[in-house]
Amino acid sequence: MTKTNPGNYFEDFRLGQEIIHATPRTVTEGDMALYVALTGSRFPLHSADTFAQDLGFEGATVDDALAFHVVFGKTVPDVSLNAVANLGYAACRFGEPVYPGDTLSSVSQVIGLKENSNGKTGTVYVRSIGVNQRGEMVLDYCRWVMVRKRDESAPAPDPVVPELPDAVAVHDLIVPDGADFGVYDTTAAGSPHLWEDYKEGERIDHVDGMTIEEAEHAMATRLYQNTARVHFNQHTEKEGRFGRRLIYGGHIISLARALSFNGLANAVRIVAINGGRHVAPTFAGDTIYAWSEVLEKHELPGRRDIGVLRLRTIAVKDRACADFPMTGADGKTDPSVVLDLDYTVLMPRRVS
Amino acid sequence: MTKTNPGNYFEDFRLGQEIIHATPRTVTEGDMALYVALTGSRFPLHSADTFAQDLGFEGATVDDALAFHVVFGKTVPDVSLNAVANLGYAACRFGEPVYPGDTLSSVSQVIGLKENSNGKTGTVYVRSIGVNQRGEMVLDYCRWVMVRKRDESAPAPDPVVPELPDAVAVHDLIVPDGADFGVYDTTAAGSPHLWEDYKEGERIDHVDGMTIEEAEHAMATRLYQNTARVHFNQHTEKEGRFGRRLIYGGHIISLARALSFNGLANAVRIVAINGGRHVAPTFAGDTIYAWSEVLEKHELPGRRDIGVLRLRTIAVKDRACADFPMTGADGKTDPSVVLDLDYTVLMPRRVS
Amino acid sequence: MTKTNPGNYFEDFRLGQEIIHATPRTVTEGDMALYVALTGSRFPLHSADTFAQDLGFEGATVDDALAFHVVFGKTVPDVSLNAVANLGYAACRFGEPVYPGDTLSSVSQVIGLKENSNGKTGTVYVRSIGVNQRGEMVLDYCRWVMVRKRDESAPAPDPVVPELPDAVAVHDLIVPDGADFGVYDTTAAGSPHLWEDYKEGERIDHVDGMTIEEAEHAMATRLYQNTARVHFNQHTEKEGRFGRRLIYGGHIISLARALSFNGLANAVRIVAINGGRHVAPTFAGDTIYAWSEVLEKHELPGRRDIGVLRLRTIAVKDRACADFPMTGADGKTDPSVVLDLDYTVLMPRRVS
Repeated sequence: MTKTNPGNYFEDFRLGQEIIHATPRTVTEGDMALYVALTGSRFPLHSADTFAQDLGFEGATVDDALAFHVVFGKTVPDVSLNAVANLGYAACRFGEPVYPGDTLSSVSQVIGLKENSNGKTGTVYVRSIGVNQRGEMVLDYCRWVMVRKRDESAPAPDPVVPELPDAVAVHDLIVPDGADFGVYDTTAAGSPHLWEDYKEGERIDHVDGMTIEEAEHAMATRLYQNTARVHFNQHTEKEGRFGRRLIYGGHIISLARALSFNGLANAVRIVAINGGRHVAPTFAGDTIYAWSEVLEKHELPGRRDIGVLRLRTIAVKDRACADFPMTGADGKTDPSVVLDLDYTVLMPRRVS
Repeated sequence: MTKTNPGNYFEDFRLGQEIIHATPRTVTEGDMALYVALTGSRFPLHSADTFAQDLGFEGATVDDALAFHVVFGKTVPDVSLNAVANLGYAACRFGEPVYPGDTLSSVSQVIGLKENSNGKTGTVYVRSIGVNQRGEMVLDYCRWVMVRKRDESAPAPDPVVPELPDAVAVHDLIVPDGADFGVYDTTAAGSPHLWEDYKEGERIDHVDGMTIEEAEHAMATRLYQNTARVHFNQHTEKEGRFGRRLIYGGHIISLARALSFNGLANAVRIVAINGGRHVAPTFAGDTIYAWSEVLEKHELPGRRDIGVLRLRTIAVKDRACADFPMTGADGKTDPSVVLDLDYTVLMPRRVS
Repeated sequence: MTKTNPGNYFEDFRLGQEIIHATPRTVTEGDMALYVALTGSRFPLHSADTFAQDLGFEGATVDDALAFHVVFGKTVPDVSLNAVANLGYAACRFGEPVYPGDTLSSVSQVIGLKENSNGKTGTVYVRSIGVNQRGEMVLDYCRWVMVRKRDESAPAPDPVVPELPDAVAVHDLIVPDGADFGVYDTTAAGSPHLWEDYKEGERIDHVDGMTIEEAEHAMATRLYQNTARVHFNQHTEKEGRFGRRLIYGGHIISLARALSFNGLANAVRIVAINGGRHVAPTFAGDTIYAWSEVLEKHELPGRRDIGVLRLRTIAVKDRACADFPMTGADGKTDPSVVLDLDYTVLMPRRVS
């Protein structure tokens, strides 16, 4: 019997099955430095211990997207090694902040299974939970992927499609314990624009563009110990559908988030990802731009220091975003669009 | 009104204006490791805690040029986002050593303004100070940049050009408190050549060459949270003057310093940058070489353990430096020269 | 006299000579993060503090190959700057585990010298020992390199060729003090296959391939402060034998080890390198694959929790390893083979 990991095929998943993923990972200041070097992130809560401590945190926290990628990466060998496509995310909540020195590990539960009519693939729905070394939840999200069957004649399971919310409800969002944004320093943060200054429907062009090199996305993806082969092996990918390595979609999320600093500098923490779609593949040499729309704006019960914005950030490639590309006059998605991300952030309020 | 940072234009600056720059940054062992990976630096004070502690430091200090780049990077969004050219540096002094865990922030004051005769641009002179989390000065330097006017019809300010010294005076140099170089270990440092062994006018070919990849300079520049667009966006730069991304001039300073180890291994700490000029742009694929000349040699009052060398280091591209390229027989600068840096280092003396 | 390091030539070495190498290096979490980003390593002892502490370690240990590269890198300026070829390794034992914060330094002794019959080069045999800041041995190995003579007329030394063992004897292997693998968590580690499950002669295809970029191998090699010029200078290498930069052979060892996780996930620590040969050069763009054979299997005296496997791992380029490429029907080495490494690992045993 082979000792290498063949990954799970569609018929290997059982409804309710719990999968404890391998490779716990201590996230360190080394990972944080690499994350800045690979994305250019400037959000101050992740950049400066002093800034974070003034707000009541122990120190600079690990970038939310970095924590996401580490937790996600652990699920790949079990969930998506034989995936044809990463179909979507939902109900993703961020819990305890992650600090350098914390060790993250991941567990998933199969919450839905539905074989496709072609009998060759099926959709697997999992809920994955990332915890720190004290067992505290740092991330809790649902994801569904299309996975190959090993044996096309294997019987289809009873189809179960979980009901997933369009968005994480405001009362389910987690504000880190002990954080007080009343002393938030907008000068140090780099922008005077606070929660009050944004309105629903507002669109923001994040202006800047970032070109991706092959070494950069591969380093990022290996840093997360994500083992999906399409990102690393040019020898096989040159014979594949695109003739080249595909960039991990999460790297595009990171770049879009980093670019969004220019216009959303005070979006101090991601608290939820409501949904996300990798609309088109990206490759080394692509230049990523982004724009955002404020979908919703909410107060947080009992808090005067901080509010919530639900954002939609669109990342595109090789095209500026001054005209907010998304859907063309013909109703079709603009071919430059690569990511459509719906997420929720905390933003400090103006203290009067 | 836009929420993105448009940067300051020439007419936005006022003489005496103080600018508190955004994004304090905790410099960590992660940044130090990346700095070594990107430059190949081997200076022992930045490489080994034990070596540094033997000299009276708390531990390995952050490379002087890395500290410079972090402090400098913070000034970019306010000072040079709309710059046409980075014209020069002067009067740069290094103060408190930076240790991993220190948080750096930057403040600038406008010390000069002079509109150019074309009415389209002007020179802005700033003095920038980088401090650590205790408010102690780690870097204090002047810089002048040519900045675009937003509105060419805006009135010109009264021209003020600050007087800047040709070099930082020896009595203004800062030797870190508590450091004792009398126990300096030349074997561990990698060279027997101490202060006594160098003479004014001496030239040193640093021999080695280092080729730069696109991913490398972009990672370095993002690590410093430097946001100048020309370094990152191939989509726009391919239409620009050079058809490609420009390498951050500071990365060339770092490479020249790292290469200078071979011949100046005991130049243990940079204490001043007297002046510097990025003579020509550099691009991915260029191979950087360097050579140095000892401009001046000074004792330090009251110290027998350490002396001062004022150095001029010339970096060139795609050409060895055995013949010390700088000015040709025709009086013109050799086209291979990319950096002309005048700086001052501490070097241990031979203890008799 | 030149102040740059010309390196040692064959006639500079003396039998019995001790060389204290420069540049002690504090290895940090930054180096560990970069190592993961550059290799994709997933071995849990190096990935998670919690996992390591459960086994009795202080915390996650520095990857064995990373420690090897740091110790090795220090020897380059003295031993192999003028080397024509890196001929082999033997008798390499790993001692104290390396933790982030430890400072490594290296000392070598010349244990053999033999001039080649052409009078232009000779073989230098050194035994190099890497120690931590407490002087404890972390690595002890022999290596031989072919080094140029500076002066072909220099007299040949009496030839001395040391006797080196084919393999490190089992009783010479060092199991870290205080480690107890009886509580080893195979789920967290990522594989159920333990020492009992492997048999001598078994071959394992590690399946995955990893393409190397120029920026990646150069960053890795600079991280180790390895100064061998062929890895960095495209300006000279484009005129050289291969027309391009050569990848540091150690980077291939690291990739092969990281790839071997898929099939040897519980090879928890390298305790010896018995021999190794860089069979062919590698270049940016190459995709590395690997396969392994179990050469020997031993119990460790007095231990029920852990056993020893002697492995041979073959790395190849641009070719899958399902058919275990090594020697063709014609008796010649398959041209895709780039590394032939004979080493010994610890692997937990099944506790009954």
